[in-house]
Amino acid sequence: MSRRYDSRTTIFSPEGRLYQVEYAIEAISNAGAAVGILATDGVVLAAEKKIISKLLDTNAVGVRREKMYKLDDHIACAVAGITADANILINTARLAAQRHLLTYQEPIPVEQLVRALCDNKQGYTQFGGLRPFGVSLLYAGWEEGRGFQLYQSDPSGNYGSWKATAIGGNHQAATNILKQDYKDDITLQEAIKLIIKILSKTMDSTTLTPEKLELVTITHDSQKEQVRYHVLTEPEMKPLLDEINKQIQKEKDEES
Amino acid sequence: MSRRYDSRTTIFSPEGRLYQVEYAIEAISNAGAAVGILATDGVVLAAEKKIISKLLDTNAVGVRREKMYKLDDHIACAVAGITADANILINTARLAAQRHLLTYQEPIPVEQLVRALCDNKQGYTQFGGLRPFGVSLLYAGWEEGRGFQLYQSDPSGNYGSWKATAIGGNHQAATNILKQDYKDDITLQEAIKLIIKILSKTMDSTTLTPEKLELVTITHDSQKEQVRYHVLTEPEMKPLLDEINKQIQKEKDEES
Amino acid sequence: MSRRYDSRTTIFSPEGRLYQVEYAIEAISNAGAAVGILATDGVVLAAEKKIISKLLDTNAVGVRREKMYKLDDHIACAVAGITADANILINTARLAAQRHLLTYQEPIPVEQLVRALCDNKQGYTQFGGLRPFGVSLLYAGWEEGRGFQLYQSDPSGNYGSWKATAIGGNHQAATNILKQDYKDDITLQEAIKLIIKILSKTMDSTTLTPEKLELVTITHDSQKEQVRYHVLTEPEMKPLLDEINKQIQKEKDEES
Amino acid sequence: MSRRYDSRTTIFSPEGRLYQVEYAIEAISNAGAAVGILATDGVVLAAEKKIISKLLDTNAVGVRREKMYKLDDHIACAVAGITADANILINTARLAAQRHLLTYQEPIPVEQLVRALCDNKQGYTQFGGLRPFGVSLLYAGWEEGRGFQLYQSDPSGNYGSWKATAIGGNHQAATNILKQDYKDDITLQEAIKLIIKILSKTMDSTTLTPEKLELVTITHDSQKEQVRYHVLTEPEMKPLLDEINKQIQKEKDEES
Amino acid sequence: MSRRYDSRTTIFSPEGRLYQVEYAIEAISNAGAAVGILATDGVVLAAEKKIISKLLDTNAVGVRREKMYKLDDHIACAVAGITADANILINTARLAAQRHLLTYQEPIPVEQLVRALCDNKQGYTQFGGLRPFGVSLLYAGWEEGRGFQLYQSDPSGNYGSWKATAIGGNHQAATNILKQDYKDDITLQEAIKLIIKILSKTMDSTTLTPEKLELVTITHDSQKEQVRYHVLTEPEMKPLLDEINKQIQKEKDEES
Amino acid sequence: MSRRYDSRTTIFSPEGRLYQVEYAIEAISNAGAAVGILATDGVVLAAEKKIISKLLDTNAVGVRREKMYKLDDHIACAVAGITADANILINTARLAAQRHLLTYQEPIPVEQLVRALCDNKQGYTQFGGLRPFGVSLLYAGWEEGRGFQLYQSDPSGNYGSWKATAIGGNHQAATNILKQDYKDDITLQEAIKLIIKILSKTMDSTTLTPEKLELVTITHDSQKEQVRYHVLTEPEMKPLLDEINKQIQKEKDEES
Amino acid sequence: MSRRYDSRTTIFSPEGRLYQVEYAIEAISNAGAAVGILATDGVVLAAEKKIISKLLDTNAVGVRREKMYKLDDHIACAVAGITADANILINTARLAAQRHLLTYQEPIPVEQLVRALCDNKQGYTQFGGLRPFGVSLLYAGWEEGRGFQLYQSDPSGNYGSWKATAIGGNHQAATNILKQDYKDDITLQEAIKLIIKILSKTMDSTTLTPEKLELVTITHDSQKEQVRYHVLTEPEMKPLLDEINKQIQKEKDEES
Repeated sequence: MSRRYDSRTTIFSPEGRLYQVEYAIEAISNAGAAVGILATDGVVLAAEKKIISKLLDTNAVGVRREKMYKLDDHIACAVAGITADANILINTARLAAQRHLLTYQEPIPVEQLVRALCDNKQGYTQFGGLRPFGVSLLYAGWEEGRGFQLYQSDPSGNYGSWKATAIGGNHQAATNILKQDYKDDITLQEAIKLIIKILSKTMDSTTLTPEKLELVTITHDSQKEQVRYHVLTEPEMKPLLDEINKQIQKEKDEES
Repeated sequence: MSRRYDSRTTIFSPEGRLYQVEYAIEAISNAGAAVGILATDGVVLAAEKKIISKLLDTNAVGVRREKMYKLDDHIACAVAGITADANILINTARLAAQRHLLTYQEPIPVEQLVRALCDNKQGYTQFGGLRPFGVSLLYAGWEEGRGFQLYQSDPSGNYGSWKATAIGGNHQAATNILKQDYKDDITLQEAIKLIIKILSKTMDSTTLTPEKLELVTITHDSQKEQVRYHVLTEPEMKPLLDEINKQIQKEKDEES
Repeated sequence: MSRRYDSRTTIFSPEGRLYQVEYAIEAISNAGAAVGILATDGVVLAAEKKIISKLLDTNAVGVRREKMYKLDDHIACAVAGITADANILINTARLAAQRHLLTYQEPIPVEQLVRALCDNKQGYTQFGGLRPFGVSLLYAGWEEGRGFQLYQSDPSGNYGSWKATAIGGNHQAATNILKQDYKDDITLQEAIKLIIKILSKTMDSTTLTPEKLELVTITHDSQKEQVRYHVLTEPEMKPLLDEINKQIQKEKDEES
Repeated sequence: MSRRYDSRTTIFSPEGRLYQVEYAIEAISNAGAAVGILATDGVVLAAEKKIISKLLDTNAVGVRREKMYKLDDHIACAVAGITADANILINTARLAAQRHLLTYQEPIPVEQLVRALCDNKQGYTQFGGLRPFGVSLLYAGWEEGRGFQLYQSDPSGNYGSWKATAIGGNHQAATNILKQDYKDDITLQEAIKLIIKILSKTMDSTTLTPEKLELVTITHDSQKEQVRYHVLTEPEMKPLLDEINKQIQKEKDEES
Repeated sequence: MSRRYDSRTTIFSPEGRLYQVEYAIEAISNAGAAVGILATDGVVLAAEKKIISKLLDTNAVGVRREKMYKLDDHIACAVAGITADANILINTARLAAQRHLLTYQEPIPVEQLVRALCDNKQGYTQFGGLRPFGVSLLYAGWEEGRGFQLYQSDPSGNYGSWKATAIGGNHQAATNILKQDYKDDITLQEAIKLIIKILSKTMDSTTLTPEKLELVTITHDSQKEQVRYHVLTEPEMKPLLDEINKQIQKEKDEES
Repeated sequence: MSRRYDSRTTIFSPEGRLYQVEYAIEAISNAGAAVGILATDGVVLAAEKKIISKLLDTNAVGVRREKMYKLDDHIACAVAGITADANILINTARLAAQRHLLTYQEPIPVEQLVRALCDNKQGYTQFGGLRPFGVSLLYAGWEEGRGFQLYQSDPSGNYGSWKATAIGGNHQAATNILKQDYKDDITLQEAIKLIIKILSKTMDSTTLTPEKLELVTITHDSQKEQVRYHVLTEPEMKPLLDEINKQIQKEKDEES
Repeated sequence: MSRRYDSRTTIFSPEGRLYQVEYAIEAISNAGAAVGILATDGVVLAAEKKIISKLLDTNAVGVRREKMYKLDDHIACAVAGITADANILINTARLAAQRHLLTYQEPIPVEQLVRALCDNKQGYTQFGGLRPFGVSLLYAGWEEGRGFQLYQSDPSGNYGSWKATAIGGNHQAATNILKQDYKDDITLQEAIKLIIKILSKTMDSTTLTPEKLELVTITHDSQKEQVRYHVLTEPEMKPLLDEINKQIQKEKDEES
C-alpha cells in the first residue's frame, strides 16, 4: 500500500511519511561509511573507500580524497552516498562560504554554512519534478568563539550538532562503538585511534589498509590564529593502523 | 475510496476534504510535543526533544534549541514536525520581521508575522507540484499595546490566538490537562511548572530530565522597555523538574 | 462514472459540470454558517464560531473576529469555509481597495471590489495545477449614490446582490427562515434580532452564547459623512441573546 | 470509448472531435436562455433569469442585469453559461474596446471586438492545462457604415453573424419559433414582442414575469449621432408581457 | 493498440505515425469542402458553406465570407476545418504579411507566407501540451516574376504547390473530377464553371444555390499593376449555377 | 514489455534503448528514398518523389525541389521523412549559415553546419514534452581545403561522413547496390548514372520518369572560385533515364 | 517490481537505486569500447569503431575521429555510448575550457574540466523531464605541476582518476587484462601496444585492422613547453597491429 505514496516527494503518505526521502537514505546506507569525532583539541573525519583498485591513480588529488572536501579554510566535510550528488552540494557550499567572506570580511560561521546547505536540500523534498539528494554529510569546523564543531545532515535537509557520529554503511554499528568508547575529554590523537578502530571493526574487508581510508583533521593554531586542514598521509596512518589491527587481533584471540 | 483524492493538495475530495493537508498533520502527531502558555507576566514555550543521545553536542547552540527559534527580539517560536521544513519557514519569518523593522522602524506586530507565514503555508496547499509544510508552530511574543500573545498555526495555513495550547505528539492529552489546570490569572512561574507537569505526564519516557526539554520564556521589562527572550538553563530547570517528578510520584502512590 | 471528471477544474464532465468546484462548495457546507441582512439603515453580518474552547484567547483581535474582516473603511466581509484560503482572498481584496483609493482618491465601489475578487477566484477554476478557493464570502458595504449593499460569492467566482442571504453549514435552513421573516422595510435593530434568531435555530449547539457569535454592522453617519464598521461587544449581544433564547424556549414550550 | 479522448482540449478523438468543447457547450444548455433579434431600427437582446428569489436585491445594478453587459457605448452582450467565466470575457472585451478607442480615436468595429474575444476563447481549446470557457455570447451593436449587427459565439471560439438567434437552455425550440416568425422587415417593437413570446413559450416556468426577464435594446439616434443602450424597465415590460400572456392563453384555449 | 500512441503529438507510434495529426485531418474531412484552380489568367477559390439558415445575416461581411480570407492585397485563402483555429492562423498570416511589407517595402512572396504559417503549424505537432490546428488551407496569390500560384497546407504543417486541388469533405471525389477535367490552358472563366460543377456534384445537398457557395478570384491587371481580389456576388453566380444545374440534370436524365 | 518505455524520449528502456528515436526512424523508412554520392569532381544528391499527380504545379520552385534544399551557396541537402519537420531544420540551418558568414566573413564549414543541426536534433531526444524530428538528411558541400563532402544525419542527432549513402524507403537495398558499384575514383557523371540506376531499382514504381526524381549536383569551378548548386532539368535527366531503363530492361531479359 | 521506479531519474527505488541511470549505463555497454592508459611519458586513449563500411569517408576529419575529441590543447577525450549525447557534452567542455583560458589566461586544470562536465551530467539525473546522458567518457590531459592525468566519468555524473581504465562494450574483460598487465613504470610505447592487445582480444571481430581503431596520445615536450595531441596514422598503427596479431595467433597456437 505504501506504493501509492512513494514515487514523489510532493506527497505525504497517510501516516505522514515521505517515502522518497526514506529511499534516498536507503541509498546512503549502501555507501561507504564516514565517521566524525569532536575532540578537545580538534575534529577528525574518516571515510571508508569502497572501490579499491590498483588501477586507481591514488596520487591524483581528486581521487585520493574522494569522500573528503575542504569547504573553506576552516571547514571540512565527509560524504556518504551518491558522489555526483555530493559534488553539487559541495559546489554550493564553497560558493556560499566565499560569498560570505567577500561580503562580511570574515569566515562564515560553521552552522550557518550547514544550514544554508540543508535549506537547499529541503527544497528538493518539497517541489515537484525533483528527487532528494542521495547524500549525507559530516561537517567539521572551527570558529572564533564557538571553537570546534561537528555537524551531520541527511537527505531531508535535517541536521544536528554532534560530539561523535557516523553515516553511511554500518553506521549503526559505528554509533554503538562511539557510545561505548567516546568520552568528553578525548584528545585528537585518541579520537584518531578510535575512528580507525571503528572503521576496522565495521568495514566488510578483513584488514584495514591505508588505501581504503581517508582521514582529515581540523586543528587550530592559536598563536598563528590559523585553522589547519590536514589530510593524513600513508606514513602517518600506517603505525596507527598496525597498532589497531594488532589490538583487534588480540581481542579476537582472547575471545576464542 | 479516499485514495482517489489523496495524492495532491490541488484536488478536493467529494466531501470537500484536502487529504494531503490531513496527512501532513499526521506527520506532526508523530513528532515531539510542544506546549505554550500565556501568563499574566509573560509567555512560556516548551518542547520535548525526541532524540536523546549522549553523543549529541548539547553545548552547541544549534542543537540545544532544536525546536525553539527566536524570530525577532520580541517573538519566539516552537515547532513540531519536520525540522527541515520548519527551518525554511523560520528563514521566511526572520526575513519578514527584519524587512518590517527596516521599512517602518518599529518591530513587526506579532499577528502580522504569524499571518505572513500562514499565507506562505497556504500557497503550498493550493498550487500544483508542491506538498504542504509538515510542521505546526507556536508563536510567543509581546508588542506595545496588545501585550503578550500566543499563536498556533498548522500545515493548512490556519492559525489562532490561544491562552494555552499544544501541538505534536499527544497534544490531545496535553490540551486536556491545560483545560483542567489553566486559569486566567496564571503567573509565568506557575505556567512553567504547569508546562513541565504536562510534558512529564504526556511524554513516553518515564522520567523527564533537563536534556529532554527545551524551555523558553518571553517577558517584558517595562522599565528598560525591552522584551526578554530567555532559554532556561539546566540549573534553572533542575529544581522544577525534581519538584514535579516528586509530585507525580506522589500522585501515583496515592492511586495505588 | 463522475469519477473520471472530478479530479481537476480543467475538465468538464459530459454533463458540463465542474466537479471540483462542487466539492469545494461541499467543503464550505461543513463550515460554520454566516448570515447577512440588508436593512434600511445598515447592513448586518453574523457568523457562527465552530471551535469554542476556554483556552482560546478571545481578547486577541485576530481570533475574536475569526470570520469577520474589514476590507476597507466602508466594506466588511464574513467568510465560511477554509480560513487559510479566506486569508489569501482578504489580502487581495484589501490591496485592491487601497490601490483604488490611491489611484482615484475615492473609495472603491463595493461591487467593483467583489468582482475583482471573483475574477481572481474564477482563475482557480480554469487553469491547471490549482484548486478552487474553498470559501464563500458575504460582503457588506455602503457607497455614495447606491447606499447599503450586500453581496455573496462562491468558489466558482460567481456572485450576486442580495437583500438577505446565508452561506456555510445549514445555510438552506437559514435561507428558509429569511424568506419567511425578511421584509423590505426591516430596520437594522430588527435585522440583528432576526440574525441571532436564525443562528440560534440553525446552530447545532443547544444554546447560543456570545462567544459562539461574531456580529458586525455597517452603518452610515450622514452628518459626519462616515461609514461605521462596528463589532458588537458581548454586553451589546447579551440582552439580545437572552431575549431570543427566551422566545425560542417559549415556542418550544408551546409546541409541546 | 469516447472516454479516452474527452479529458483534454489538447487531444482530438479519432473522429476529429474535441469532446471538452462539446461538454462546455453542454454546460451552456443547462443555463438560462438568451435570444437576440436584429430589427430594421435596432437590435434587441433578452435573457431568462433562472434563479429567482424574493431575497435577491433587484435594485442593485449588478444583479438586475446579471446576463446583460454593456461592452462599449455601442455594443451590448448577453451571456448564457457559467457567469464567472463570462465575467472574465467581459473584462477582456471592455479593455479591448477602450484600448481601440484610445489608439484610433474611434469606436471599435463590432466584428473586430467579437473576433478578439473569440481568438481568446480559442486559445483555451488548444493549449494544455486549461478548460474552454463555459459560456456562449450574443453581441448586439451598431457601427457607422454597417449599421446594426448581431453576433453569436460559442466555447470553441467560433462566431457567426445572425438576423436572429438563441443560446442556452431550449435554444433549439427558440430557434424554431424564430425561423417561423422572423421576417426581414421586422421593427424593433415587433422584435421585442417576438422575443417575449419566445421566452414565454420556452421557459420552464408557467407564466413569464418581469423579474425573470432581462431586456436590452440597442438603437441609434441619427440626429444626435448617438447609440443608445437601453435596459427595459419593469413598467415598460409589464404591458407587453400581459399582452403576450393573454395571447398564449388564448392559443391554449383554442387548442383544447 | 494504436491507442497507446494516439493521445499526444509528442509521441510516435511504433510504425512512425503521429495519430493526433491524423485525427486532426479527420476533423477537416467532416467540414465543408474547398476547391482551388490555377487558371492561365487568375486563380479561383471556392468553398461550401455547411450551415445554411435563413436567420444568418448574409449581408454582414464576416459571415458572407466565412471560409474566405484576404491575407494581403495579393493573397487570398480558403479554409476547411475548425473555423476558430483558422482565425488564429489568419491573424498570424496577416501580421507576417504586413511585417514583411513594412520591412522590405514590397509584398511578401506567396510561398514565403505559406511557409511561415506552416512552420507555425508544425510547432503544434512537436511540442507538448498542444494539439495540432484542425484546419487545412488553400492559398491563392500572384507575385511579380512567378505569376499566379496555388498552395495547399494541412495540420502537419506540410504544404505543396498545385494546379488544382481540394480540401475538406469529399475532397477525394472533388480531386477525381479535377484530374479528369483540368487542363493546363484552362481560363479563369472555365475554372469557375468547373469549380461550381465539382461542388454541385460533391455536396450532399441536392441543388447548389448561391448562398451555399463562396467564390473568390485573384486576377492581375498588368496595366494598373494591381492584383484584384474579387468576391463573386450572387447575381454573378446565379447564371453560372443555373447552367451547371441544368447540365447535371441533363446528365442524370441521360443516365436513366 | 517494450511498451513501458516507448512513449517518451526521456526514458531509457532496461536495455538502454530510446524507443521514440527508433520509431522516428521508422517514420522515415516509409518516406521516399534519398541517395547521395561523393564523386571526384562533385557531389550528387537524388531523391524520390512519392506523391505524383498531374495536378501538382511542377513549375513552382517550392514543389519542384520538395526534398532538395540549398542551405548556403556551398551546401545542399536532401531530406527523407516528415517534410514539415524538415522545413524547421532547414530554417535553422540557413540561419546558422548566414550568421556564420556575417560574423566571420567566410562560408560556414560543412561539418560545422551539420553538427549545429544535429545538436539541435539531439535536444529533442533528451528533454521532456517533445518528440524527435522525424527526418533524416543528406548534406553535400564543398569547402576550401577539405573539398567535396557528404554527410548523413538521423533523428537521434547522430551524423557521419560518407562516400555514398542512402536514407528513407528501401535505403538498405540502395546501400547494397552502392557497396557493389561504388568505386573511389567515380566521376560525377558516373555517380549520376549510378544514382538513377539505384532509384530505378529500389523504387516501387515500375518505370522511373523525370517527374518522380529530384537531382542536384554540387560542383566547384576553381577558376571562378565558385561553388555551383545545380538542379538537373528534365531534358538533362531524360537521356540518362532512358539509358538506365533500357539497361535494366536488358538485365531483366537476360535473367528470364 | 523494479518497474514502478524505473521510468524517471527523479524517483529512488525502495533500495535507493536510480534505475534510469543504470539503464543509461546499459546503453553504453552496447557501444564500442574505449580504453585509456596513463604512462610515465604520456597518456594513450584508444577506441573501437563499431560501424565499418567501405562507404564511410575515412579521410574526412569528423568521422575519422568519431570517438576521439580534442577538448583543449592539453586535454583529449574518448567516448563510449550515444554519439549525439557525447557531442553535446563535448561542446560544453570546449566552451568551459575556452572560457577559463580567457578569464585566467592559463589552461583549465584537467580535473576542473572533468568536474564541470560531471556536474552538468548530474543535473540530468535529478531534474524532471530529462534523461541522463547515455555516454561515458575518458579524459587524458597534462597540466603544469600535476603532469599527466587520466579520468573516467559515467552517466550518473560520477568520475574518478585512473592509471588505466576501460568503458563501453566488454569493458570488464578489458579491465581484467589491464589489471594483469599494467605496471606503474609503463612507457607510452608499451601502453600503446598493451591497448592494441586489449582491443584485439575483446573486440568481437576476428582481426583488428587500422580502420576499426582510433588511437590518440597526449605527450609533453618540456623544451617547447607544449602539450602534443597526436592521432596515430594508419602507417603508424600497421606494424604495431601486425605484431600484436602475430603474438595473439601464437598464443592461440600454443593453447591448442
